[in-house]
Amino acid sequence: MVMSMTSHDAWMAQALKLAARGRRTTTPNPNVGCVIVRDGELVGSGYHRKAGTPHAEVHALAEAGSKARGATAYVTLEPCSHYGKTPPCADALIKAGVANVVCAMTDPNPQVAGQGLEKLRNAGIEVISGVLNAEAERLNRGFLKRMRTGRPWLVAKMAASLDGGTALANGDSQWITGPEARQDVQSGRADSCAVVTGVETVVADNPSLNVRLDGADRQPVRIILDTQARTPVPSTIVTLPGRTVIIHGAQANPLSLERLQAAGFELVEMATANDHIDLPAFLSWCGQQAFNRVWLEAGATLTGAFAEQGLLDELWLYQAPIMLGGATRPVADFRLDSLKQAHRFDVDDVRFVGKDIRWQLLPAFP
Amino acid sequence: MVMSMTSHDAWMAQALKLAARGRRTTTPNPNVGCVIVRDGELVGSGYHRKAGTPHAEVHALAEAGSKARGATAYVTLEPCSHYGKTPPCADALIKAGVANVVCAMTDPNPQVAGQGLEKLRNAGIEVISGVLNAEAERLNRGFLKRMRTGRPWLVAKMAASLDGGTALANGDSQWITGPEARQDVQSGRADSCAVVTGVETVVADNPSLNVRLDGADRQPVRIILDTQARTPVPSTIVTLPGRTVIIHGAQANPLSLERLQAAGFELVEMATANDHIDLPAFLSWCGQQAFNRVWLEAGATLTGAFAEQGLLDELWLYQAPIMLGGATRPVADFRLDSLKQAHRFDVDDVRFVGKDIRWQLLPAFP
Repeated sequence: MVMSMTSHDAWMAQALKLAARGRRTTTPNPNVGCVIVRDGELVGSGYHRKAGTPHAEVHALAEAGSKARGATAYVTLEPCSHYGKTPPCADALIKAGVANVVCAMTDPNPQVAGQGLEKLRNAGIEVISGVLNAEAERLNRGFLKRMRTGRPWLVAKMAASLDGGTALANGDSQWITGPEARQDVQSGRADSCAVVTGVETVVADNPSLNVRLDGADRQPVRIILDTQARTPVPSTIVTLPGRTVIIHGAQANPLSLERLQAAGFELVEMATANDHIDLPAFLSWCGQQAFNRVWLEAGATLTGAFAEQGLLDELWLYQAPIMLGGATRPVADFRLDSLKQAHRFDVDDVRFVGKDIRWQLLPAFP
Repeated sequence: MVMSMTSHDAWMAQALKLAARGRRTTTPNPNVGCVIVRDGELVGSGYHRKAGTPHAEVHALAEAGSKARGATAYVTLEPCSHYGKTPPCADALIKAGVANVVCAMTDPNPQVAGQGLEKLRNAGIEVISGVLNAEAERLNRGFLKRMRTGRPWLVAKMAASLDGGTALANGDSQWITGPEARQDVQSGRADSCAVVTGVETVVADNPSLNVRLDGADRQPVRIILDTQARTPVPSTIVTLPGRTVIIHGAQANPLSLERLQAAGFELVEMATANDHIDLPAFLSWCGQQAFNRVWLEAGATLTGAFAEQGLLDELWLYQAPIMLGGATRPVADFRLDSLKQAHRFDVDDVRFVGKDIRWQLLPAFP
């Protein structure tokens, strides 16, 4: 939030706040909010709730009714210009007779990409774009990354002691962090389209990886990277509501695959590299599945492999105020030859969660 | 600082602030500040600057002059009742005719220990003790620990990546943290009576461990724990102004000791346990040297040994927002069998120093 706001900023901040309400339900669509203002007064507001249902602008225009005529519409993302599951919002704004449209950003979706604004301008509406742009980017990191690259926004969650231990040498790891941090992880999962782990974690911990929050009506797709199809049957993860997918290589034993399919797992064959799932190929597949945000909750080997290949978009590191000494397992296992190669991060946010600290980190680009 | 302050608290806070000005110069004496207030107005103030020079009360009374009569004196530590290098402050307060004395805490120094307050009360002065007690304890952690236990307050400084690495497997460790954090370490040293390291650090890094701050007129005593007297000659550490002490075992080679003495090191023989310097014995020796605060800046083995024996009073952990992967050296090398044995800390302070985070941690007692 800025210290001193223009009125454009202030109205856009309201629209962004509305947009965020849809963050667990709009997938694969972006989060969008809209407020309509006439003579300095709010006359309508709305946000996109769910794919296939009306867009933010439609809700706001419905509320504004005839007061939309001559008003200013603040929208967090460029209004769409194409027929998707619903008609173009640019047309609706023109039809309602708004005088001005203020956007936070253009929509990188190739079906929109400036054409929405173009359409509005051609209809004689005054258009401004870029108000609270950074905040709008932040709101839709997943959708925007997927539109721009075909891959989802990948968030790796880690939990460690202050000295970087995630487990003792004997494997003891329950629990490093406190109950508040573990609850917070639930919301990290709930905000994601898929939760990814490695087969080693499934073998070692038999985790659920589901969302256990009151009122959570979406279960992220649970995904196990398991080149050789070694996931045990039975496993808790496949017994829970929602989809559980095993990503395996061509080399997996057909009998194991059959057994897993019979147990309820979906199977997806993926390219491999050096006998491991090819991670860029996997992320492209996630993009094709229309996953905007993917949550990685895995051990040091798999997390380290994503990190080493530069594929992490964001890191959530929970640090407990404890020390575990020298004989521990690391958060991410990769090897550097020089400090110059260190993976550097910008601190996006850092705060206490219970007695633990939660870091939200973005890779720093030199 | 409290949200809502009584006037006692507010005046005591001023006295504490004054006291802190002496934090690098009063050793082995405590930091003490005093303000004298009459009819709600400040009439005198002062703080103790250096051992052997007047105490805080004497400065404040001199400034107050005749206005001290009937006034209230706020002192951060119980006024002394004994003749040391200067006459008792209790007598000075009585002589000046102050009506009230408000203290933050009694002085655990066995030569005072309540007798100062007793003397004041016997002279008809109204005495309150315990105002901003926690803040006063914090100000003189070193002095108070030494008075109570005969050992100094031991602060271990560590610098690591987010994933707990202090160096790559190949030893590369310069630099993990940024220039601001390294400058901040200078002030951690400057606030200490002695800086302690292990011979391995001297062999590997040839460090200076001196204070390089403008206006620093005290160089903490530099101490190397070196059971076998393996410190190399020449070593930078002994060429700098101030004392450099080698703590060795009886088993050290006499020729090595001779060579070290010739190079300018002071030699102190210490008891050993399992072929290492006996750390509790070493800390008692530090107490005998009248060191209030000792700064430990060592590698994982020595820091881990102090931690494992429960001898650390405070931890300063600088964390750089970087990750170094799995093949790194730990901050403190000790081994646990169960997470229940984890060393737990309370966060005394945490803040950014440049791009790095500085944690100030106190061991949590269950």
